[in-house]
Amino acid sequence: MKTKAVFYHAGCPVCVSAEQSVLGALDADRFDLQVVHLGTNKSRLPEAEKLGIKSVPALVLDGHVFHINFGASLSDLK
Amino acid sequence: MKTKAVFYHAGCPVCVSAEQSVLGALDADRFDLQVVHLGTNKSRLPEAEKLGIKSVPALVLDGHVFHINFGASLSDLK
Repeated sequence: MKTKAVFYHAGCPVCVSAEQSVLGALDADRFDLQVVHLGTNKSRLPEAEKLGIKSVPALVLDGHVFHINFGASLSDLK
Repeated sequence: MKTKAVFYHAGCPVCVSAEQSVLGALDADRFDLQVVHLGTNKSRLPEAEKLGIKSVPALVLDGHVFHINFGASLSDLK
């Protein structure tokens, strides 16, 4: 069974760059990759906050949050 | 030819957690993985700074720096 890997972003250039590099580098044989655009999909903001995401882009591997660089604060997207 | 992926850290719990999760998730078939402990290998600090690393843990994929969370500032390691 594959591990869940979710990449949350907001469409900013920093996010897109990180998405392509980091998500593209993950082993697709072992991970189910999902991308969530919090800028256009605000209904998933509560889920992101519950996971402990403070900024995007963020990568969640098996429930563990890794903030990558610093793109936009979640509060900027509300 | 594999792409170079270097993970810089300083041995802190945040770094070790990130190393195991993020580095372990990369596709080893496509990346040459290297881990640099800047706390014990200070001779590589100039290289890290030249790459644009501001804090550790940081993952460098093909020359692009991705700061993960915020562990320790490079200035704390000098």
